[in-house]
Amino acid sequence: MSKSRLEAFSDGVIAIIITIMVLELKLPQGHNLESLIPMWPVFASYVMSFVYVGIYWNNHHHLLHAIKSVNGAILWANMHLLFWLSLVPFVTNWMGESHFYEIWPVVLYGFILLMNAIAYTILAVLLVRHEGEDSLLANAIGNDWKGRISLACYFVAIGLAWVSTYLSLALYVLVACIWFIPDRRIERKLATEHVKP
Amino acid sequence: MSKSRLEAFSDGVIAIIITIMVLELKLPQGHNLESLIPMWPVFASYVMSFVYVGIYWNNHHHLLHAIKSVNGAILWANMHLLFWLSLVPFVTNWMGESHFYEIWPVVLYGFILLMNAIAYTILAVLLVRHEGEDSLLANAIGNDWKGRISLACYFVAIGLAWVSTYLSLALYVLVACIWFIPDRRIERKLATEHVKP
Amino acid sequence: MSKSRLEAFSDGVIAIIITIMVLELKLPQGHNLESLIPMWPVFASYVMSFVYVGIYWNNHHHLLHAIKSVNGAILWANMHLLFWLSLVPFVTNWMGESHFYEIWPVVLYGFILLMNAIAYTILAVLLVRHEGEDSLLANAIGNDWKGRISLACYFVAIGLAWVSTYLSLALYVLVACIWFIPDRRIERKLATEHVKP
Amino acid sequence: MSKSRLEAFSDGVIAIIITIMVLELKLPQGHNLESLIPMWPVFASYVMSFVYVGIYWNNHHHLLHAIKSVNGAILWANMHLLFWLSLVPFVTNWMGESHFYEIWPVVLYGFILLMNAIAYTILAVLLVRHEGEDSLLANAIGNDWKGRISLACYFVAIGLAWVSTYLSLALYVLVACIWFIPDRRIERKLATEHVKP
Repeated sequence: MSKSRLEAFSDGVIAIIITIMVLELKLPQGHNLESLIPMWPVFASYVMSFVYVGIYWNNHHHLLHAIKSVNGAILWANMHLLFWLSLVPFVTNWMGESHFYEIWPVVLYGFILLMNAIAYTILAVLLVRHEGEDSLLANAIGNDWKGRISLACYFVAIGLAWVSTYLSLALYVLVACIWFIPDRRIERKLATEHVKP
Repeated sequence: MSKSRLEAFSDGVIAIIITIMVLELKLPQGHNLESLIPMWPVFASYVMSFVYVGIYWNNHHHLLHAIKSVNGAILWANMHLLFWLSLVPFVTNWMGESHFYEIWPVVLYGFILLMNAIAYTILAVLLVRHEGEDSLLANAIGNDWKGRISLACYFVAIGLAWVSTYLSLALYVLVACIWFIPDRRIERKLATEHVKP
Repeated sequence: MSKSRLEAFSDGVIAIIITIMVLELKLPQGHNLESLIPMWPVFASYVMSFVYVGIYWNNHHHLLHAIKSVNGAILWANMHLLFWLSLVPFVTNWMGESHFYEIWPVVLYGFILLMNAIAYTILAVLLVRHEGEDSLLANAIGNDWKGRISLACYFVAIGLAWVSTYLSLALYVLVACIWFIPDRRIERKLATEHVKP
Repeated sequence: MSKSRLEAFSDGVIAIIITIMVLELKLPQGHNLESLIPMWPVFASYVMSFVYVGIYWNNHHHLLHAIKSVNGAILWANMHLLFWLSLVPFVTNWMGESHFYEIWPVVLYGFILLMNAIAYTILAVLLVRHEGEDSLLANAIGNDWKGRISLACYFVAIGLAWVSTYLSLALYVLVACIWFIPDRRIERKLATEHVKP
């Protein structure tokens, strides 16, 4: 089964998710610069979620780039990832609207990030199993330290929300920074592979 | 006529349908965990419809994967399917907002699922006729027991709504479970075909 | 310049236009069958516009299928068509919400259909000029009687709105029926061409 | 790394941005022609932004058409451009809703156009660096006079908003006119290149 429609459908869904978040930027009450100030938490939430969804798209791109075909289980693992991604606009909005002060919106945001990370890991594991342990992808992913650190950070961040929601947010930003650089492992391996005949 | 634009357009429409449903998850009133509780019926509706639309995308993928070209009638049969799919967000929202207690929202949800199933069947029949009765697709679909059971379930579920809406919902979940597994018949036949020269 | 991205972008925009119209189907006030009745004009508008946008997608598909490359003027003629298509959801909503009783919403709906038809004609003319008067496309389009009848019908329909809005609507439905059948001229010519070496 | 998914994702995001702006065309209060009159600033904003987003899509199309592959930095530069494009619907709406009278909405609109222009320039610079200074793309872009004039115009327009918002708007329209013609430099160079063996 070819991977092209899987990519096209995922691109469509991720493109919509990343764009409909902007619909939550409601019109400010006034027409001067001050009227924009109360919007900063909603805007900051938007920026963070835009970066996160962008990271997922980038990594999804890299992950599927290295593979050759897909099967039914992979289709559903991909749909499962898209499901959790589709909830990002909701939690972004709730967290932004609560001005980062409230515990539960920050916790739920972390929970959705956590579920996305788990869904991504499941997809990666299924892809590696499908391609074989000696495949390009399996080598490229190797020991997934980034994924492990992210999962740990999300758990700690959720717990820290009861201490200070700003600590949780700092951890969310940290994870985004870790992932910001696209998965060079795959890129480098692919490059090496192309050099080797 | 090539099938690639038909796939691209369908992917786009289905991606939008599956994603705009999340816009109905309105912000909760408060900022604590309790404020999320009244949202569970809307969320449960969302999950069920996400799975259903995902199933349609998966099966659409399999159906078109096996064919080589399309004609004008197939283009319109596909548009007809997309029309009924496009009504899923509306009935999802109505059913969720009525907390599954009311008869008519549950009946209408079933009716839209039924019309989707009929539209899918029409598309499949036209594709088989276009490809020929001896084609890969015709063999792969064979006697469409899943489709027949689904149609029967939808009729029964609609009738049962006057007894208990929860019985109807149980049947909707059952049909989703039946279809959850992508159409292995086509997958297996294709695999066999590739082995045979 | 290749036509593939033009097709992909147009597919995306048309897919979004055809789908966001469903967001105008607001939740009914009650939970019984009667509460759906006041929605019929909005729903009827939706169905008509879905068919119209579907017709444009189908014809766009056929039009671009027959060509080999595009230029800057064609890119903008296509964007011009997408602009007028993007206004369809607005006029659909206004006409539906006014229950087809009011003159201006029906007139504006016809005006937007007219502008779409003109934009489509401009695109077709530019494509024929680009491909050459002896090209497959030029032969296939031939004397565009469907296009001419449509333009005439839109003008008459707009005028008739002051007599009865239902006459205008009847003409809109008539034009949709004329176009419903995809452009067999192109399909047939292409088929003939493939037979001839 | 191939450029096709980058194109597909960008097409999706730009298609959604250009289309969701129409959701801001709220239903008029009445059903006659007069009730449309108060909508003209929102509509005029919509038209201008539609043209701007169309220009970005056209130029993006041309820019990526000339290249062969992408890297991680280019993926993020593209995401950065999409981020600023995604804010266009918000500022369009704010400017339209303030009827072009207020200074800050017009300033913010110019600022978002400016950031888009900067993001586009960064993307173009990274692409030229990736392709090499002797590449087709580097030659085609040459000394980017259009880009420089645009940047200057945006700065002047933002400053002029305190004199008259209509002067700012005139400059925004002027820049749109400059860019309206797709980047013939690239088109011509490509054409020449194809003639030369």
